[in-house]
Amino acid sequence: MLKKKQAYTVAILGATGAVGKESLEILEERNFPIETLRLFSSKRSAGDVLSCQGKEYKVEELTEASSFAGVDIAFVSATDTISRDYGARLGATGVVVIDDSAVFRMDPDVPLVVPEVNAAALRSMKRGIVAIPNCTTTPLVMALKPLRDIAGIKRVVVTTFQSVSGTGSAAMDELVDQTKALMAFQDVKVQVYPYQIAFNLLPQVGSFGDGGDCSEEVKIVQETRKILEMPSLRVTATTVRVPVLRCHSEAINVELDRPLKANDARAALAEMPGVIVYDDPVKKLYPMPFDVSGKDEVYVGRVRVDESITNGLNLWVVSDNLRKGAALNAVQIAECLIQ
Amino acid sequence: MLKKKQAYTVAILGATGAVGKESLEILEERNFPIETLRLFSSKRSAGDVLSCQGKEYKVEELTEASSFAGVDIAFVSATDTISRDYGARLGATGVVVIDDSAVFRMDPDVPLVVPEVNAAALRSMKRGIVAIPNCTTTPLVMALKPLRDIAGIKRVVVTTFQSVSGTGSAAMDELVDQTKALMAFQDVKVQVYPYQIAFNLLPQVGSFGDGGDCSEEVKIVQETRKILEMPSLRVTATTVRVPVLRCHSEAINVELDRPLKANDARAALAEMPGVIVYDDPVKKLYPMPFDVSGKDEVYVGRVRVDESITNGLNLWVVSDNLRKGAALNAVQIAECLIQ
Repeated sequence: MLKKKQAYTVAILGATGAVGKESLEILEERNFPIETLRLFSSKRSAGDVLSCQGKEYKVEELTEASSFAGVDIAFVSATDTISRDYGARLGATGVVVIDDSAVFRMDPDVPLVVPEVNAAALRSMKRGIVAIPNCTTTPLVMALKPLRDIAGIKRVVVTTFQSVSGTGSAAMDELVDQTKALMAFQDVKVQVYPYQIAFNLLPQVGSFGDGGDCSEEVKIVQETRKILEMPSLRVTATTVRVPVLRCHSEAINVELDRPLKANDARAALAEMPGVIVYDDPVKKLYPMPFDVSGKDEVYVGRVRVDESITNGLNLWVVSDNLRKGAALNAVQIAECLIQ
Repeated sequence: MLKKKQAYTVAILGATGAVGKESLEILEERNFPIETLRLFSSKRSAGDVLSCQGKEYKVEELTEASSFAGVDIAFVSATDTISRDYGARLGATGVVVIDDSAVFRMDPDVPLVVPEVNAAALRSMKRGIVAIPNCTTTPLVMALKPLRDIAGIKRVVVTTFQSVSGTGSAAMDELVDQTKALMAFQDVKVQVYPYQIAFNLLPQVGSFGDGGDCSEEVKIVQETRKILEMPSLRVTATTVRVPVLRCHSEAINVELDRPLKANDARAALAEMPGVIVYDDPVKKLYPMPFDVSGKDEVYVGRVRVDESITNGLNLWVVSDNLRKGAALNAVQIAECLIQ
């Protein structure tokens, strides 16, 4: 755990990526007690200058020779390889690593944390590493927790609508570039995704294994169970990439243990820290990526009793995948650890 | 029913709309026996000249005074008001009306038909009107029918990803115009939808009633029950508009009565006329709007056993909403009626 200090030396591995840049903004907005900041990236972006809390920092190239002496907290949001290569090493040398990859999430010695849901799990940290969940799992468990607490959960069917920023900056550029090309009747270049994403849908997030699920679907099931501490919770997921730049949306169907009226579900959700209920469809008020981009909270709308099953409930959840889905959740974990 | 003829006089009400134009193409492609064609539109498009089967036809303005003498079959795909005002009147005067609106679908004297699923229902036509289902219901029942026949269906949870062409030509223009404006950093104009659709998602299709469901969700439930002749089938739907021009996609979770392996489900689906199983995710083969646009068949992929429930199955279905979802289905009904 972290020694109590006035201010901390913070490293960001992957500082120039979509999540890294968001982390800098969030550390500044939340006035995180930073003594000094070390920013790391691949060779391509090394030398860039980024600012945080009124100071400028030059981005260093991350190499085998990089020294992390004096670093208290490292936010790692780069590639699985970087997490694997540096996460365990840093964790073992006394740095608290808050890791955004899937590498450590299911390790029983690594807490997988959404502070509003399971901050207590931080006590079980054994390797100096805390993992943050996949950016679709976080809003899901934020919505499920208050429902579980009030009515119990039997089964969850979730369908995701995931923005391209979940893949990173290059995917955001690809969507914009493809869109511009199509508007100019030019050929579309496909690099990040296997197919054109502009004006299209890809029913694949991550890669496919033998079972027919893609890796994102497996992550949602496993991570939800771990975070909610319900190892046999019944969850099925279908994950779809959509031509949206920012925010992940989810259609969630829940079978509860006990009856719950829509109004009571809304009340329970509204009491959940970090959740905003935005739900008056007759007035056309429901969460949309367009509105939720840049917001910290998980927005929940379209709360409806599902009459097709006893104790059924439908929800529509939208969350900024770069904020609560990644950078914000990581910074909130750091805030818990320094309290 | 229709008298047997060598060729028929066909009217299209809404000839210049997205579905109307598709109807002309399909009548030509399928070499439908047309004696003569009468094309109707609102004042705005009247006078346009459209061609079909090598002949040119001038679009007439649809007015109270329009005469339909000699018309055998009328395809109606305009507004609910046009269907209400002209459908019943034409049906009562001996014209066979094939109607694309929601106005008559739940009328017990009006068959609601997807020929591959329930062509026999055409025998129950009493008002001279046949309704075609909503463009999300058609692919859903096409996928459900073979599964029901082989393993029975207990419950369906469906989440839709609906393209803007389901709303019509003006919505397609709106998505393109908004996209162009955003790419040029200009303000976006919102006219057809309540909010910007470009790079956004709207969890509303149709209008909201008291129950919290939007009208599209209610249609899916009611129409699926009527077409499958399962009046108490348990169905819940969440319908979402996505920034895609053409094709509706659906994530379908089915609880079956009896166990069904994924391969057996694929085999049953592959035998269904009008369905193509396109499902090898490891090779990145799955249906996408981009590929299915302009296709007649309903494409099914991502067939997976859902382990979260006994006898569960997940499917991903993509269908061209203007073809099988509308114009093609209507022409197929006409083909059944003249056989």
